[in-house]
Amino acid sequence: MNQTVAIVLSGCGVYDGSEITEAVGVVIALSQAGLPYAFYAPDRAQMHVVDHARGQESGEARNILSEAARIARGQIRPLTELDAAQHSAIVFPGGFGAAKNLTTFIKDGRDAVLYDDVAAAVRPFVQQHKPVVALCAAPLVQGLIARDEGLAGVNITFGSYAEGQAMADALTSWGQTHVETPVDQACVDLAHRFISAPAYMYGEATPAEVFASCQAAITALKSLLS
Amino acid sequence: MNQTVAIVLSGCGVYDGSEITEAVGVVIALSQAGLPYAFYAPDRAQMHVVDHARGQESGEARNILSEAARIARGQIRPLTELDAAQHSAIVFPGGFGAAKNLTTFIKDGRDAVLYDDVAAAVRPFVQQHKPVVALCAAPLVQGLIARDEGLAGVNITFGSYAEGQAMADALTSWGQTHVETPVDQACVDLAHRFISAPAYMYGEATPAEVFASCQAAITALKSLLS
Repeated sequence: MNQTVAIVLSGCGVYDGSEITEAVGVVIALSQAGLPYAFYAPDRAQMHVVDHARGQESGEARNILSEAARIARGQIRPLTELDAAQHSAIVFPGGFGAAKNLTTFIKDGRDAVLYDDVAAAVRPFVQQHKPVVALCAAPLVQGLIARDEGLAGVNITFGSYAEGQAMADALTSWGQTHVETPVDQACVDLAHRFISAPAYMYGEATPAEVFASCQAAITALKSLLS
Repeated sequence: MNQTVAIVLSGCGVYDGSEITEAVGVVIALSQAGLPYAFYAPDRAQMHVVDHARGQESGEARNILSEAARIARGQIRPLTELDAAQHSAIVFPGGFGAAKNLTTFIKDGRDAVLYDDVAAAVRPFVQQHKPVVALCAAPLVQGLIARDEGLAGVNITFGSYAEGQAMADALTSWGQTHVETPVDQACVDLAHRFISAPAYMYGEATPAEVFASCQAAITALKSLLS
């Protein structure tokens, strides 16, 4: 248990980066569970910047690592420095950053790929059979690494099919299995050690429900690690 | 109880805006307590922008409302639209934004003033005896409005005196009383209906402890409102 859990952020804000309630919810849940953690993010430009007050692209350029550092209170390293040997598990909070900055899903749909630095970071966890945890839209990373590593039928959730249809259909096309899951529960694939939870995939979820989603995922993780 | 709690943010990130764990912790605690809320922030430029990965000013210009909207998932209004009649209480999460964007404390120390839009927003709560809640550094707002409204000896906390010395000394110079308070408890001034809690005033606090601080403040608030 002296290895830390790696948390991979994709920016700071639901529309162009990590969903903030989910990222903080994961951190509080890990802290409550007594699981130490360390933050990482890609050290490259965000796909774009969205003014969250006006719902429009702002035309600015921002760096994913610098923005993610806001959530991490400055304690964060470039994703290329992530060494799986130092970590017990890897966790991806959600937000559109998963579809824009970690994968190309927003542009390419079911033809999406993982960004190289993301694939290089998560691949050793899959190969070493260490837990891979993802919330909300971030199970896109799980579906793509499962496809790329030749896995099939891995159980993964994007909440309900109605809420997560585009992502659930893509997941199926990648050979994996979408499992409908309530907001306050986690979908656990024990064989592959993949954990996913819906959080804000349910657009009407309350912050208390989103936090329950985070806690369900981290409770499942703690169980796998003990 | 059909009035909402007004949450006032000062940006998005501990070094130039709202401390994110505290802001989210307050939202989760309100949601768990069944207290509805609405977000506000000043619609003006931040004092400056800090690259949280590098710990340096970036030279960019950012708008407080647009950045705070990242925490609020877009559901936020300009602080000048806050009408105390629509709200049961007002809450200020912490972060350096309290000293940089809500008050002039970072530049002026004990000669600090509230920004006009902040004073106009919080003053009616004090005058109407509605609860004013603040975390971490944001009790600066409480101390300044108490001074400006002619109150004296209001009990307010910045955690321990050792951690919060500069702010605690300023508070005393404004005629109020600093009360040392553990991280997981709230300082409640029942007579004035001011609630404060230390959160990350304890620099070594864990996220679980910071969330406990948020929950202690909101539990005290719920008690005052019921």
